[in-house]
Amino acid sequence: MGRIRNILFIMADQLRADHLGCYGHPYIRTPNIDALAARGVRFTRAFVNSGVCGPSRMSYYTGRYPSTHGATWNRVPLSIGEVTMGEYLREQGRKLVLAGKTHVMPDHDGLRRLAIDGGTELGCLLYSGGFEEIDRYDGHHEPGEESGYPAYLRRHGYVSNDPWTDFVISARDEHGQAVSGWHMRNARYPALVAEPHSETAYMTDQALGFMRKMGDEPWVLHLSYVKPHWPYIAPAPYHNMYGIDQCLPVVRNEAEKRDAHPVVAAYRQQEESQSFATDECVRTVRPAYQGLITQLDDHLGRLFEYMEGAGLMRDTLIVLTADHGDFLGDHWLGEKELFYETIQRVPFIMVDPSTEADATRGSAEARMMESVDVLPTFLDALGLPQASHRLEGRSLLPLLRGATGTWRDCVFSELDYSYRRARLLVHKTPQTARAWSVRTERWRYVYWMDEPEQLYDLQADPDQFQDLGREATHAAVRAELRARLFDWFTRLKRRTTVTDAAVEKGTDAYKKAGVFYGQW
Amino acid sequence: MGRIRNILFIMADQLRADHLGCYGHPYIRTPNIDALAARGVRFTRAFVNSGVCGPSRMSYYTGRYPSTHGATWNRVPLSIGEVTMGEYLREQGRKLVLAGKTHVMPDHDGLRRLAIDGGTELGCLLYSGGFEEIDRYDGHHEPGEESGYPAYLRRHGYVSNDPWTDFVISARDEHGQAVSGWHMRNARYPALVAEPHSETAYMTDQALGFMRKMGDEPWVLHLSYVKPHWPYIAPAPYHNMYGIDQCLPVVRNEAEKRDAHPVVAAYRQQEESQSFATDECVRTVRPAYQGLITQLDDHLGRLFEYMEGAGLMRDTLIVLTADHGDFLGDHWLGEKELFYETIQRVPFIMVDPSTEADATRGSAEARMMESVDVLPTFLDALGLPQASHRLEGRSLLPLLRGATGTWRDCVFSELDYSYRRARLLVHKTPQTARAWSVRTERWRYVYWMDEPEQLYDLQADPDQFQDLGREATHAAVRAELRARLFDWFTRLKRRTTVTDAAVEKGTDAYKKAGVFYGQW
Repeated sequence: MGRIRNILFIMADQLRADHLGCYGHPYIRTPNIDALAARGVRFTRAFVNSGVCGPSRMSYYTGRYPSTHGATWNRVPLSIGEVTMGEYLREQGRKLVLAGKTHVMPDHDGLRRLAIDGGTELGCLLYSGGFEEIDRYDGHHEPGEESGYPAYLRRHGYVSNDPWTDFVISARDEHGQAVSGWHMRNARYPALVAEPHSETAYMTDQALGFMRKMGDEPWVLHLSYVKPHWPYIAPAPYHNMYGIDQCLPVVRNEAEKRDAHPVVAAYRQQEESQSFATDECVRTVRPAYQGLITQLDDHLGRLFEYMEGAGLMRDTLIVLTADHGDFLGDHWLGEKELFYETIQRVPFIMVDPSTEADATRGSAEARMMESVDVLPTFLDALGLPQASHRLEGRSLLPLLRGATGTWRDCVFSELDYSYRRARLLVHKTPQTARAWSVRTERWRYVYWMDEPEQLYDLQADPDQFQDLGREATHAAVRAELRARLFDWFTRLKRRTTVTDAAVEKGTDAYKKAGVFYGQW
Repeated sequence: MGRIRNILFIMADQLRADHLGCYGHPYIRTPNIDALAARGVRFTRAFVNSGVCGPSRMSYYTGRYPSTHGATWNRVPLSIGEVTMGEYLREQGRKLVLAGKTHVMPDHDGLRRLAIDGGTELGCLLYSGGFEEIDRYDGHHEPGEESGYPAYLRRHGYVSNDPWTDFVISARDEHGQAVSGWHMRNARYPALVAEPHSETAYMTDQALGFMRKMGDEPWVLHLSYVKPHWPYIAPAPYHNMYGIDQCLPVVRNEAEKRDAHPVVAAYRQQEESQSFATDECVRTVRPAYQGLITQLDDHLGRLFEYMEGAGLMRDTLIVLTADHGDFLGDHWLGEKELFYETIQRVPFIMVDPSTEADATRGSAEARMMESVDVLPTFLDALGLPQASHRLEGRSLLPLLRGATGTWRDCVFSELDYSYRRARLLVHKTPQTARAWSVRTERWRYVYWMDEPEQLYDLQADPDQFQDLGREATHAAVRAELRARLFDWFTRLKRRTTVTDAAVEKGTDAYKKAGVFYGQW
């Protein structure tokens, strides 16, 4: 093991922490991810800063909370005023390469406002959130020109204007009838695409091709899989690899529906929750979801094997994580977004090849991390300057290298549900459909704008069945957690146009600038 | 009186609200400003969003609080990600013209990052914060090329490389010795510059020239005087127009120095406060400060007379205000920044020429306004769209036109004292030298990061002599005001890249975008 030259940042979309072997799932086979964990450190308390793809990823890519980066939901563009991972690397002569999904929505208005031509190199980078794209593939849409996947599919015999729609997420039922993976009832069938041509296989090939091409050149690669995110449909043999008896029990009970929090109740009225409320949906989807995870693991095995052979394991920092979990029927909910551990807690495995990290290999790390830590960690790993006036996370490297000092004792997450039907159901405007949450070792607290608070005692009630948000007995706990949130709001990084070092240099320096006020 | 075609936005730098005749000063003569108030509405509770030039002005120019616009102190550049008054006007085919001071610090890093050439029209606009500059003159420095003032001075016989330093802020003492206005002891002498060539006269001439040139074309002009801001030195006859017996008594007592708030105590150790702690300094400076105000009023008289004759009073919305006050020795302090009414409360006079506003002419308005309201007011006055996803203030026009609905019951202000010596004295980092304040009808509350709170009962103690921030008796009041501040933090406008209307349109619309998740 040696010095860090490369970074491999692997993200799986909508992957629950409890759906990996090394995180304790009793049935899912993920031997390659488990082996990765054995090489490095597995964080048991890793949390996202939002339970939605877009804002969660933007926190990974900017090192900032949704309240500061401003891309608070999937359809909200990332302001060109925000500086991304790719830009920090580029400033230091490095590149950030993408294979897969980012969910960056380009800030067209901002580019127009500043008359930046989208066709220039800079324009392209700003459109893409700072990534140099080998292949950008955000998934769950028929891909456009940004991805080579449609052409690849056609080359392999999937002849169609919409090969993704017609083969990757389509199947045939018992009667030979074409059915769509958009309908969850069809998760039981194998996708029409052959496994070697599936999304996961294709994107792994892209990463392998990139690594081969780079040879001895150092690189930073974001390999970002669109699976196991819906549409829930897996190619054979993964589609029926697991039975429902090999799935975790659904975490829900009748009691939690009574007197539920208004916003949670509204989410339960959305179609995905209504669908997952039936046992049939859970029984059909969960095995396919698990199959997609084992498929992912198999391809990661292929990738890690190559890296081992090419000597890349010696000098590559590897992170594997997800942007959030998936309810899959837990709490009578589908999809994601809300403040349950199911959604907010993600797998986070980090392998630091340095000898300083040898002592922690194979260990579980219980100190809390959040998505905003990833960018500071990468900058630290490459010995690049930290933009402390913008970055709101902190490097995790010391945790892998034996640091024992004080560490954070809570993490934060946010939700903007303006775009969701739930907003209409609780009669909010696009400016008032917001929530912020703080999670300590024991508590999960949620502050909802113009709605009651939520509070869960994770020690007494790890499944979050009992919302103490309106219990008089817990008013003091809520007040204390609200104070934490208040303190967090005050510490967000707002003064982004000047470094802390420049402020230090400029402190009490007006006389040097030729200004002599205040003298008698 | 008719429809609003033009806007004249007048700002005086560091002008205390209580230093105008119409605001009750018993001695200062400001007949022209008083007449303006008689034509329109005088706000008795107008507050700035920061007691410092830069952040206060950026709140006027962006309609956003310092915590969102990010230019938290004088030397902090305004991010090019922020949209300014000039840009909003420009988008609608209007221009925002500047004569005088803005204190906009260009975001060089941002421009470099986005490869925007400062020499282009767009680059110039971004450098200047969206103003088209007739004459930019930020004051208290020898002006550079952005102002025609040095050349003007030389043309009028002030022969020097540094005519501002050598004539405008210089004087001769009793012995004929050249002395500098940088030393407050010299505020007693007349400036060497002749009054018609002074800063205030010059900038008024610029505004007059502009109005003449525009003729019947509509315009929006920011006429922004650098006076009565220090250096405190007035040309004859204004330098000795007032005696100390015509000044307000200094608001300070010995008791307030005992057990003072640590940050306030630290500000009292700064040179300007030490100087103003002596009676001699107060006695010398205050008359000159008052003279500068009457001088300003005389020139505004000249301007208003022209406007009357040219018919501009019929269709021009006029606002006259300041960016903050000036301690002038009150509370044993000099300069500004802290959360006293002396600093935070400013004059605010608005004349709406529309017939709808006739009923309120000459009245005093007690409803609270803050700097962030000015941009929404201007957009409203010109019938332009409000960017409700960015603007944090609200239009004041309805208040002048008889609206009686609910209105805000508190205002907010902030301080970043990272650049001040006070920070070093209280051992803070550039990230922890911050404060936020809420002011209700009765209370002034200040939350200091990592320092005790402050609380003043403005009803029982209008002079703010007694800080109740650490009194156990007032814990409940502080908690309630802290909750207000918390609520304010949650409502700051963060999602700036998409309009609220677009969010409404996109709500629950994923199926329209070809995404069909959640269906069984």
